[in-house]
This record gives sequence, C-alpha cells and structure tokens, in this order.
Amino acid sequence: MQQNPAARAPVTSDARRPNSRFDMLDRYRAVRGATEALAAPLSAEDQTIQSMPDASPTKWHRAHTTWFFETFVLTPQRRDYRPFDTRYGYLFNSYYEAVGPRHARPARGILSRPSVDEIARYRAHVDRAMLDVIEAAPAEFLTLIELGLNHEQQHQELLLTDIKHAFWNNPIRPSYRAEAVPVEARAPTMQWLDLPGGIHEIGHRGDAFCFDNEQPVHRVLLRPCRIGDRPTSVGEYLAFMADGGYERPEFWLSDGWAMAQAEQWRAPFYWEPAEDGGWRVHTLGGTRPLAPAEPVSHVSYYEAAAYAQWSGKRLPTEFEYEGARRRHGGGSSPERTVRIHPAPLGGAAPFDQDVWEWTLSSYSPYPGYRAAVGAIGEYNGKFMSSQMVLRGRSCVTPPGHERATYRNFFPPSARWQFSGFRLAEDL
Amino acid sequence: MQQNPAARAPVTSDARRPNSRFDMLDRYRAVRGATEALAAPLSAEDQTIQSMPDASPTKWHRAHTTWFFETFVLTPQRRDYRPFDTRYGYLFNSYYEAVGPRHARPARGILSRPSVDEIARYRAHVDRAMLDVIEAAPAEFLTLIELGLNHEQQHQELLLTDIKHAFWNNPIRPSYRAEAVPVEARAPTMQWLDLPGGIHEIGHRGDAFCFDNEQPVHRVLLRPCRIGDRPTSVGEYLAFMADGGYERPEFWLSDGWAMAQAEQWRAPFYWEPAEDGGWRVHTLGGTRPLAPAEPVSHVSYYEAAAYAQWSGKRLPTEFEYEGARRRHGGGSSPERTVRIHPAPLGGAAPFDQDVWEWTLSSYSPYPGYRAAVGAIGEYNGKFMSSQMVLRGRSCVTPPGHERATYRNFFPPSARWQFSGFRLAEDL
Amino acid sequence: MQQNPAARAPVTSDARRPNSRFDMLDRYRAVRGATEALAAPLSAEDQTIQSMPDASPTKWHRAHTTWFFETFVLTPQRRDYRPFDTRYGYLFNSYYEAVGPRHARPARGILSRPSVDEIARYRAHVDRAMLDVIEAAPAEFLTLIELGLNHEQQHQELLLTDIKHAFWNNPIRPSYRAEAVPVEARAPTMQWLDLPGGIHEIGHRGDAFCFDNEQPVHRVLLRPCRIGDRPTSVGEYLAFMADGGYERPEFWLSDGWAMAQAEQWRAPFYWEPAEDGGWRVHTLGGTRPLAPAEPVSHVSYYEAAAYAQWSGKRLPTEFEYEGARRRHGGGSSPERTVRIHPAPLGGAAPFDQDVWEWTLSSYSPYPGYRAAVGAIGEYNGKFMSSQMVLRGRSCVTPPGHERATYRNFFPPSARWQFSGFRLAEDL
Amino acid sequence: MQQNPAARAPVTSDARRPNSRFDMLDRYRAVRGATEALAAPLSAEDQTIQSMPDASPTKWHRAHTTWFFETFVLTPQRRDYRPFDTRYGYLFNSYYEAVGPRHARPARGILSRPSVDEIARYRAHVDRAMLDVIEAAPAEFLTLIELGLNHEQQHQELLLTDIKHAFWNNPIRPSYRAEAVPVEARAPTMQWLDLPGGIHEIGHRGDAFCFDNEQPVHRVLLRPCRIGDRPTSVGEYLAFMADGGYERPEFWLSDGWAMAQAEQWRAPFYWEPAEDGGWRVHTLGGTRPLAPAEPVSHVSYYEAAAYAQWSGKRLPTEFEYEGARRRHGGGSSPERTVRIHPAPLGGAAPFDQDVWEWTLSSYSPYPGYRAAVGAIGEYNGKFMSSQMVLRGRSCVTPPGHERATYRNFFPPSARWQFSGFRLAEDL
Repeated sequence: MQQNPAARAPVTSDARRPNSRFDMLDRYRAVRGATEALAAPLSAEDQTIQSMPDASPTKWHRAHTTWFFETFVLTPQRRDYRPFDTRYGYLFNSYYEAVGPRHARPARGILSRPSVDEIARYRAHVDRAMLDVIEAAPAEFLTLIELGLNHEQQHQELLLTDIKHAFWNNPIRPSYRAEAVPVEARAPTMQWLDLPGGIHEIGHRGDAFCFDNEQPVHRVLLRPCRIGDRPTSVGEYLAFMADGGYERPEFWLSDGWAMAQAEQWRAPFYWEPAEDGGWRVHTLGGTRPLAPAEPVSHVSYYEAAAYAQWSGKRLPTEFEYEGARRRHGGGSSPERTVRIHPAPLGGAAPFDQDVWEWTLSSYSPYPGYRAAVGAIGEYNGKFMSSQMVLRGRSCVTPPGHERATYRNFFPPSARWQFSGFRLAEDL
Repeated sequence: MQQNPAARAPVTSDARRPNSRFDMLDRYRAVRGATEALAAPLSAEDQTIQSMPDASPTKWHRAHTTWFFETFVLTPQRRDYRPFDTRYGYLFNSYYEAVGPRHARPARGILSRPSVDEIARYRAHVDRAMLDVIEAAPAEFLTLIELGLNHEQQHQELLLTDIKHAFWNNPIRPSYRAEAVPVEARAPTMQWLDLPGGIHEIGHRGDAFCFDNEQPVHRVLLRPCRIGDRPTSVGEYLAFMADGGYERPEFWLSDGWAMAQAEQWRAPFYWEPAEDGGWRVHTLGGTRPLAPAEPVSHVSYYEAAAYAQWSGKRLPTEFEYEGARRRHGGGSSPERTVRIHPAPLGGAAPFDQDVWEWTLSSYSPYPGYRAAVGAIGEYNGKFMSSQMVLRGRSCVTPPGHERATYRNFFPPSARWQFSGFRLAEDL
Repeated sequence: MQQNPAARAPVTSDARRPNSRFDMLDRYRAVRGATEALAAPLSAEDQTIQSMPDASPTKWHRAHTTWFFETFVLTPQRRDYRPFDTRYGYLFNSYYEAVGPRHARPARGILSRPSVDEIARYRAHVDRAMLDVIEAAPAEFLTLIELGLNHEQQHQELLLTDIKHAFWNNPIRPSYRAEAVPVEARAPTMQWLDLPGGIHEIGHRGDAFCFDNEQPVHRVLLRPCRIGDRPTSVGEYLAFMADGGYERPEFWLSDGWAMAQAEQWRAPFYWEPAEDGGWRVHTLGGTRPLAPAEPVSHVSYYEAAAYAQWSGKRLPTEFEYEGARRRHGGGSSPERTVRIHPAPLGGAAPFDQDVWEWTLSSYSPYPGYRAAVGAIGEYNGKFMSSQMVLRGRSCVTPPGHERATYRNFFPPSARWQFSGFRLAEDL
Repeated sequence: MQQNPAARAPVTSDARRPNSRFDMLDRYRAVRGATEALAAPLSAEDQTIQSMPDASPTKWHRAHTTWFFETFVLTPQRRDYRPFDTRYGYLFNSYYEAVGPRHARPARGILSRPSVDEIARYRAHVDRAMLDVIEAAPAEFLTLIELGLNHEQQHQELLLTDIKHAFWNNPIRPSYRAEAVPVEARAPTMQWLDLPGGIHEIGHRGDAFCFDNEQPVHRVLLRPCRIGDRPTSVGEYLAFMADGGYERPEFWLSDGWAMAQAEQWRAPFYWEPAEDGGWRVHTLGGTRPLAPAEPVSHVSYYEAAAYAQWSGKRLPTEFEYEGARRRHGGGSSPERTVRIHPAPLGGAAPFDQDVWEWTLSSYSPYPGYRAAVGAIGEYNGKFMSSQMVLRGRSCVTPPGHERATYRNFFPPSARWQFSGFRLAEDL
C-alpha cells in the first residue's frame, strides 16, 4: 500500500481478533512495541533521511502512525484530550484531505525537528491516553483502534522497505542487521496447481478485521486454469535475463519498455554488477551474492509481465490467486518473525511465500464497494486508479497481518517493495 | 486507442464486410478517400503542426496510415514492390518495435519535409499498388487490408481530435468548419435502464471484423444494476461545478485530485471563462456558448469518477455497458456522417451517442487473449496497463467503425478526445 | 543576439547611412526585399516549424520584423494607420513587456495561422504605409526606421540559423541551397598580431547608426597582448579533440563540464560521426565531410574556453578584440553576399571572418549606459546578465550590418549560431 | 563562493598571518574549534538534512573541510599517514575532478552514515596528524594549510546559511539561537562618497594570504562616480515594493523578470506575509517583524538590479567598490563575532557592513590570471562564468576572514546568502 488501509472494519473474531478489551490492551502494546523494536537499530540520523518521494523517514512513520490514533480515536473520543503538539497535524498527516492541509510528501526528509527523542515522547503521550481509551471506549472505537493497529503494521513494513532504499543510496551501504542466507541452493522445480472453472466467492467474510477494499463478498466466474506452486525464483529469472529479457521489446508492455529504457533497467532493483560478471544484491543485511533459490524480488509489474510473456505463460488474476489459495492452502503462522530477505523457496505452503506477488488485476473497487464517510474513507478507495493488485505477503510483513483476501496495490513501475510474481496458464 | 489497431482479425461478414474483392476495392477507395476529404480543409501549415506529444500532425496521420499498408501488406505480399521512399519507414512508424527504430513521437511537428504534396504522392503511389494487390492477394492479406482500413479510420478520428487541439492552442482560434448547434435546448430527463444480474457473454462473435482485444468471447457474472439511458449532459455537469466539484477533494481519486490541482482544472477541457461569468467552449467550428443539451465531453476519467461520486452513483463497467447495449439497443447508422460536435442528447438510441464513455474498467486482456505473433501483435496488447476502457463512439468516429464490443482506451488523465460518461447504480 | 538591438540610435552618416529620404526609401526596399529573398526557398511547411524554444519559425521572423515597424513607427506616427490585424500585437511581440502580453515563445511553432500567404499580405500592407511615412516622417522617426532595418537584418541572420537547426532535426536532412566548399585545403598558419598596452577608446563614435549597447564611447586600460590573426580552424580543433578535449575536465569551466556531460557533447554542434570513424557536418547545403580550413563554428563559449585552456592561451576580451581590429583592420565589404557556411581561412582581413567570435567578456553595460525610455529601451539593456559578448560577424550576417564596435551576445551554452573563437595571450 | 577557495596563496604577513609555526598551531586550533562551536547547537538530525541541492548538511561541511586537509596536506606530506576511511574520498570531495569521482551533490542529505559522532572522530584523527605536520612541514605546505583554514572559514559561513535555509523549510521554524534586534529604529540617511576617476590599482598586494582570484594586481581606468555610504535598508526596500517593484517589468533584467514570475517572488527571500498585511522575516533566531534599519538581505542580483533601476541609480562595479573602500575605509575588526542577522545600519565604517553586496561585475579572471596546476587549481577559476561578484562580508563571515580585495561570487538568482547591495551613480 503506497497508500492504504481503511474503514468500515467490523470488529474481528478470528485468531487475530482481540476477544476483549483486555486482549486489545495486549495487542495495542504488542503492535506499538513492535514498531519501536524495528526502529531501535537505527540512529537519529538514519531515522531522519528520506531517499525518494515515495519513501518516508523512519521517525515520520513512527509519528504518523501515532497521529492516526490521536486524530481518529483520541480527539473524537475524549473531550479532555490535549494533543501533544498542535502543529503535528500538519506535519504527520499523510494524505487525508478531509483532515486539512499537510506537509509536502517529498519534503519529509528535511524535518530535523521534532527530534527522534521528541517523537518517542509523542508516542508515549498517545500510548498513555490510548490505554485509557481502550478500557472505556465504545465498541465502534475498538473497530477504529483495530484499524489503527493494522495501519501501523503496514507502516512497519514500509519502515523496512524505506530504510532499505535509503541505505542503497548510501555508497558505503550500511547494514540494518545481519541474517544468513544460503547462496548455493536451487529452488525445487515448480509444480502446477489446478484451479477449476466456475463461480468462486471472492472477498472477506466473517467478522474478523479486514480492510474495506476486501469487501463486499461477491462471486466471480473463472475459467479453469493452473497456477504455479511458488513464485519465480532468482535462478529462473537469470535465465530470462540471459535470453535478452531486458533487451527485447517484444516481451514488454509499452509503458514498461519506455520506462526500462529511460531508467536503464538491466536487472531487478537492488542488483548490481559483480566483478566476476555476475550480480550482487543489496539487502538489509548488506551486499551479498545472489541466492538462486530465493524468489525474485524488487521487480516491477512491467518486469513480471515481461517474464510471463517470455515464458509463454501469464500472471494470475487476483481472483485466481485468491481461489487457488483457498483451495491449496496458505496463511502465515503467527509465530513467524520478520525477516530481512525472503526465505529460499520450498518448504512453505504454496501461498505462504516471502514476496508480494503482482497479479494481472488492476486495483478496482469490488462490486458494491462504497468508501466510508469522512476522512477514514480516504484510506483505500481514492487510490483505485493506475495501480495493480499484489497478493500474499512478504518477509517484512508483520506476522498475523496477512490473509487470503488481502489486497496490496502499487503502481506498475514500483520496485522498492519486496515484490515478485508467479505464473499461471489457461487450461 | 491511445495508439493502436490490430491483428488476428478474421474477414468480416456483416454490413461492413466486403463480400468480395470487388467490394473491397470499393471499401478501400472509400476509406482512403475519406481521409483525404477530412484533410482537405487544412492548409499545408495546418497539416504540419503538432501541439503536444500525444497529438500528431495531419500529414503524419496521412503518411502513417499509408506506411501501414506499405509495411504490412505491400512489402510482404509483392516481391516487386518498390517503397516510395526508404526513409519513410523511420519517419512514419508509430510504435512498432519489431519493425525497427523510429522518429521520436514528440518531434513529429518539426518534419516540414516531406511536404504535404509529397505525402499526397506517397498516398497515390501506395493506392495504385494496393488496388492491384486487392485483386490478386490471398485471403489472409484481405484480413490485413481490413485491419489497415480500420486502422485508418481510427486515425481519421485522431486527425480531427488532434487538429482541434492544435487550433485551441492558437490564440486566434481558427475554425475547421462551421456547424450549427442549438445552445438553448435542455437534455431530456435521464431514465434508468435495467440490466439483470447473471452470466453475460462478452466479446465479439462471428466473422465480421473486430480488433483482437475484443476477443476471445467469454462469460462474466454480473450483479443486477441499472444504467442511464444517455450520457451526462453539459447542463448536469454545470450543477456539479456549481456545487464545488473542482474544489472538493472528497469526490476525487487521489491521482485525479493531484492532477487537477497541478493543472488548475476548473472545468472540462476546451471550456474557457466567458465575459458574463459563464463559460464558452472551443469547437472545431470555433468558440461558442455552451449547449446544455449536449453530452459533456473532453473530460478525463478523473472528472467522470468525481462527478459519479458527487452524484452518489458510479460509472458502469465495460461489461455492464456491453450487456446493457445488447439489451437496449445502439449501433450507429452507416449513413451517419462525421460531425464536429456531439448532437444534443435525446432522439438517438441509448447506446448510440456522440461521445466516448469512460467505464470503471481498466484496460486488461480478456481471459485467453493472446496477441498475434510479430509486429502486428503490438497493435493493442502492449498497451494493457494504466489505461481505462471507453465504450461507444463519438461524433468524429467514422460511420460504420463502431460496434457493441469495441474497446477504446486512454490513460485516465486524457482529455483531448471526445470523452464523456454515463452513470450506473447497483440494484 | 538571442534577444537584441536597440534605440537611442542617432541617424547614420557613413556608407551605410541613407543621406536622404530618397536613400532611405531605397534602403527600406532593399532590406525588406532581402528578407523575402531569404525566405523564398522555403515552403509553407518549412516556414511554420520551430525546432526549439530559442529558435523561431521563418514566418514568425517575417511577421515580427513587420510588427516592429507597425508598432514603433506606423502607430505612433500616423493617426490614420489601421493595423493589419489587431491580434498580431499578441502573436508577434517578441519580448517587449511595455507593449503588452504576448504569445509564449516556445509555442510559436503551433501557429499554423496566419498562413504564410497572410504574412506576405501583412508585409505588403506595412510596406505601403512605411513608404508613405518615409517620405513625410520627422527625423526622429528616420532614426527608428533605421533601427527597424537593423533589427530586420538581425532577424535575417536568425532566420538562417533557425532553419539550419530545424533541418538538422529532420532525419532526412533537407538542404536550403547548395554551395561548394573545398574540403581538402588546410588553413594557413596562425600569426600573432600585437596590441600595445595603455588606454584605448572603446565604443561607437560618429553619427552613423549603432545600437545603444555600443555606447557611450569610453576609455579602457589594456595590458599589452597579442591576438591571433584568424579564428581557430576545424583542423586545429580536431587536434584538441584527439587529445581528449571532451574527456578531460581540467580544461573546462565547471558549468561547461556539467553541460557537456549532461548533453554528451563529443564534438561541435552539427557534427556527426562518419562511417570511416571521422566526422561529417550538417550545413545549410546538406551534410558533407569536414573542411579543415574552415573556422570551427557552432561551438559554445564553454568549448571555446576549454580549447583555449588546452592550448595554454586564452580568449581575448571584447576590448582587446576591438582595439586589435582598429589597429589591424577588418570590416566586411558591402558587396559581400550571405553565404551558408564560413569561407576557408586565409585571404580575408584578420577581423573580417565568417564566424562570430566568443570573447572573455560578459555582456555588461558600458560605463554611463542608460537604456532608452519606453518599450524600445528593452531592445538590449535587459539582457545584460549571464551572457557573453561575441564580436565580428558571420557568414550569414547581412552585408553592411557589422562594424568594429558591434556587440553580439548569447548565453555561454549557445551553439546554434555560427560561433567560433580566436586565441590571445599576454605579453 | 558558490564553491571555492584557492591556490597560489603566498604565506601571509598581516594581522591574520601566523608569524611562525607556533602561531599556525594556534590558528589551526582556533579555526577548527570555531567550526565545532558553530555546529554544537545542532542535533544529529539537524546536521544530517539537506534542504536543496545548493546547500549541504552541517556534518558534510565538517567532514569536507577535514577531507581537504587530509587530501591536500596529509596525504602528499606524510608517507605514513593512514586515511581515516578510504571511502571518505568519494563522499566528501566537493567538486575536484582531478581527485576522482564523488557523491552527487543533491544527494548529500541521504548520508545518514557516517554518523555525526563518526565525523567528530574523523576531525580528531585529522587534527592530530595536522598538528604534527604543522610542526615539521616545509613552508609550501604552510601555504596550503593557510588555504585550508580559509576554506574552512568559508564553510563556516555556508554552514549557517545552509541551516538557515533548512529551518526555513520546516513548518515549525526551529531557531538556531536567540539574538535581539531593534525593530523600530530607522537607518540614517544615506550619504554619497566620491570616487575620483583615473587609474586605480586593483587586487591583493603583499604576502598576506589571499585567494588566487584576487590576483594579479593590475590597474583599471575608472570614471568619476559616487557610492552610497551604506547598503540599502529594509525600510528603503519597502518603498520599492510599495511602488510595484515586483509587478513592473520595466525595472527588471529579462532573466530576472522571468524567474521572479516563475517563482512568484513578491519580497526578499525569507520574508513571509504577516497577519497585519505587512511582513515577517525568518532568521536564525526565529521569525520576527522586519527591522527597517537593517540592510536588506537575501535578495538576488536581479532584485538588486531592479531596485537600482527603480531608484534611477545603478550598482557599483567591483572595481569602484574596491577603490571606494580603499579611500573611505572598512575592514572588520578581528574582535567581531559571528552574528545571526545583520546589525542595524549606521555606526560601522562605510565598507564594514553585515551583508555581502552585489556588484555590477561578472565574475571574470583578472588580466594575467592563471589557475594553479592540479586539483587545487579548481578552487576558483573554473567557476568564472555566469556568476556575479559580491564584495564586502556578512554577519556570518568569520571575523578576520574578509579584506578589501575579497571576491565572493554567486549566480544572479541566488538568494540564500546574506546578500544585499548599495547604490552608485556617475558624476
């Protein structure tokens, strides 16, 4: 979600759903604490920089998620709530037009003040008030709090993707933390999973939390097809490159080819030529050789589509993905922890992989979709143009945050997310 | 078609389909002659200019459509064919990567040579050879010729939209030709047309000509809805504007609002403030007062979506449009002639209107779609990202060129086409 | 003069000065006719195009010079004068803020109307009125008329430099007219001309016409130096290139190096690689091999300065140039005709060469300079920042238009003029 | 100095010149310590940000000045010197092509690493080695060390101008430090100071330190004129604004007018509309009302020239400024301390003011100037195009750093320096 989650969210009832205010207190503390834990290895300087307009500084993520609770929960709910600093509404509003004007997104990196320490105090101030609210708030606010926590989890993922980008732009290539990866292994051979044709139900059912864009539940008519049991691997992608993948326009969408030429794409983002003629890859753990068994990541939709064209296959639609996942399993374990690069392919359930997967589907409203009234209605709906849907989760998605109906979305040119793809074909 | 036409086109069998080589000779002469008739009112200077990268000079349209026949029919079909000028392959290739390098699109307006007269000779040279070919060519080439004629008809429409844009940018506002329009009338009240839910067949069936993006025929599952019996009128659009339509972000998609602010949109394209505080509109017949009964035209997808949000309705999907049209009628008469502005609403069949209509559907391949092999496969498929589908036809669409399954497409920001919209709502 | 000449111009008294109204009639007819003769080989299409913002269409030059007489002579002088078309004041004002708003410079190439024929009628209309005025006008208007004729001569030169640029951008490389040039000859060895130190008088003296930026006459103190007896030749420039001239930053000004890298300069403008590994050059007569004896032309100030640094010399200041020219001769013969490329070096007087010569001097006002009051004061003075002075004349400067004190000026990055340079060094 | 200091600098002999190695030790410690003192009020976050490509982060200034000593003194002088980090040569080279490739200037603000603490260690490492070198180095290195110290003083000024710009872009407008200013006082009436015509000596004489662009000493011939005894005040500038200074193109240079329109200039930089219809000004001490007695500051050359044109006067040339200063006094006291805004006018010597003053002179080499060989020759010479000379000093110039012959230079559009101007007129 370059832009993101939303409203109308009924209270949740599944494993992730707090069964009581008591559970919610735990969950609030856990999610908020997870953000701080992710930021902890980063210095004040690291938390301040912004490496491109689409990325945000770490401390901005920490403050914006806090502003979300302050604006949508504390201020409406508690008459006696005193905002920590009234200027923060301008600084830390991301894109909510209904809330008022805001600091320009590309200029977030010049905000040396408030300091990192001040942001920590801001978080503590809001947390104290929130813990009080959770104990007393009406149920409708619990829904909003759950939304706020899911929103914060989305920013946890962005925090990592954004600092990865920032470190990439630093010639000395800092490392966020070390993590071993086997660079010799090969991915297991891809197998096809069948998806029968007919009417499939799509969308989130039940009262567990979901974003508004996952609803209403509706039915779609699909043709029979089959889908790969895992995303495309680095090793497979190297074969595409070796066959002229980046030099042959016949594989590419027109916009994609134009961008690849203009930006001189020669490989996935974060790859750089190695001295031996091969490639090395920048990771949150530093620069290292490629790992052929990893899913290829940090590719745009254009690259995914070009690979599919080259292979004689195609990408699955988001509906096919959802249908196949329902049939063949997936769903990450809540015990999973955030990793800094995708795990090697093989071993996990077919739809429980470590990269977001581009689908053939444009990001559009489901039949009958209506955004919530007011600012919170801006969460998802207003981004429904010129973006493609990604399904699944990635290695930096917080545990428990994903589900079968989850719709992530980015412009087709985006590459700084952990984005890969898998193949499909008609039967 | 931001850019286009296409392949796999079987020979045609309906009213528009030449029944024989003899018919094809007539049709070839008619279409080619129509292009020349459209260009005839334009001076050599008029035919040379290019007012923006997305538009092309008149003489370029005349040459490019000729190059299409030369490249895809004459050269493969006739060993003894001598190209009129071997440099034209570079100058007049639009976007076919497989054919070779080409002149930069934004620089078409600096090609003072070849002259307008030279282009006329080029057309005559190719026409002579084509008439010979039609008499002798194998059937597969007749398919390509039919594609070439449909391609040329698309460029006839572009020729008019592009010269309209060029004249708009000239402060003395030249007129292409005069044409009366009633500026006092009001559009009849819009009525709703029902579309029952269930499985609908989508796509072009039969052996009449169609573009490859209209196939394969497939089935979609639709929910019951109803659709307006005509596009939104200028008069209705003025009410949206009077209610702050261009000042209230809550109606707009995020990308649309950003563009509207950056470009300072205050009204549809080609509207300019009148001295009396109202608006005047630039047309191919000069500048004149608004005609409230006309369909609103020259709006982007963003404006169409904002109007729909304001009205509490939505746009129809392309499938709903196709289904409703099949049910409620449409299809322009072959006797229709090209007009320079949309006819007032009322009187025509519900789906036989004078503006292209934005739909809620992104331009994507139909299930099972595969582009043709080779250059001709670039006609449509490679544009299937970041564009929205428009259905219907416009006042400048050549008679006989449209049909129920026709898919036009442009980026959501495009405004220089005769683009309007109609409303729909769920039942 | 990217922008140009001006006012306060006293009536002239030298060979170029009309001695009487009768002479002025002749001169008016001659200058106006020369413009038409230069435009005659160009088609309506050629006269309409604009290949970059700094260049203007031929027909715009023809109209703007006419507008100059209409605005600054006919309208103030003749109460009964009826402008040919009142909209032309907007279309053909170049940069005179005091006269009112104007059409954007980069958009001159989209003005297909008024047509080339209409511009011819405009010129005839103004010429008829001007001939009447010349017979009756007070002396002060004769001064303005003389200014208008010098202004038109400047645009004659621009007309040729601009169409050269336009044809360069056309892949089929049209030719304006043929003209032979010896491509084997070598330039004679450069000799040094001494300029003694001390006080030199600078600026235009006498009552012949000059532009206001050539005055007041004033004195400058110069150090002894010596100056080349001719500009740098193509052959000499090739040695600079062979020695890594375009790859070695140590020769370059910082801005120049940045631009050379950004624009990938590898040779003077209009040079293109030949199949034999050498270079060919685009000229108004078509593309041909280099002529080593020609002065190098179409180089920026940055390239001139880099060459000088490489050679261990420097460029002369404009004062040194003027002093040396006074001492060593120059002054083109009035019988000279406009050529389309520079004559080979050798044979002409030292300061009577066929390229404008960059000097070390920024374009600044002479001590005591004050611009004229009103619009005509905008002719020269407002351009006195960020431009460098060029001295001399070029092969496309109209005969009789140049003089020892003439100050041409362009930004240091400009390359589309016939601009070369010569060396100097301190003694 | 947009970028600068330089070479060929002989050892110094005046008050600022160390008389011995012992003096040099003191001076080195003093200058290096002054940098640290200026940075001390700034947090790690403050020291990391970059608010525009022309500005640099505080920590970059601290590191770059250190790299200068490491590269030009320690590495050539001491065989056993071990660079602190070999990657710093890439990160902290500003513009020395001869030294090798470097980090892109606009991307200095994404370097969160090395940290502020690491830069402090870098400075300490180099300082230890430098103190050893000073005790033992040959005299030629003392010259380079003196250059390095003057270079560091230039960056001390930039550090403050750059952080002022950064804080301006933060909506909460942080303050660097408080400093009182009288906002009611009026400047004393400006008086004229005569400068007789004739030959004046220009440039730095003697063996005290100067930059290479202040030499060779040479003579210029000046016309008699008179010069204001102080810069233009804020109060006077308000009268220009009240008379339509920013709305009337007749006062402006062409480039200046174009930029003022494009950037919507309405007042000097750092001024913002106050609620009472007047103006407030952003300073390093926070935002406060205007002080009419202050010299106007943060104006571009274009604004200075427009004011002069409006007033019927002109700016002085740099030679007139130098001549008048020699005649009428100036020279800041070494006891002066760095202030954060200009002192009110009146009281100081005529040429000892708190703003840099734009002159009418383009930045060009003095007759006979030749840059030093090697990297150090890039210090000044390569910037001699498209920039204007400023003379004097500003409130943030380190004490003892300025002198009568000092030539500062910036592009005419620059506004983020403490730049004002004074008037002159011919006699």
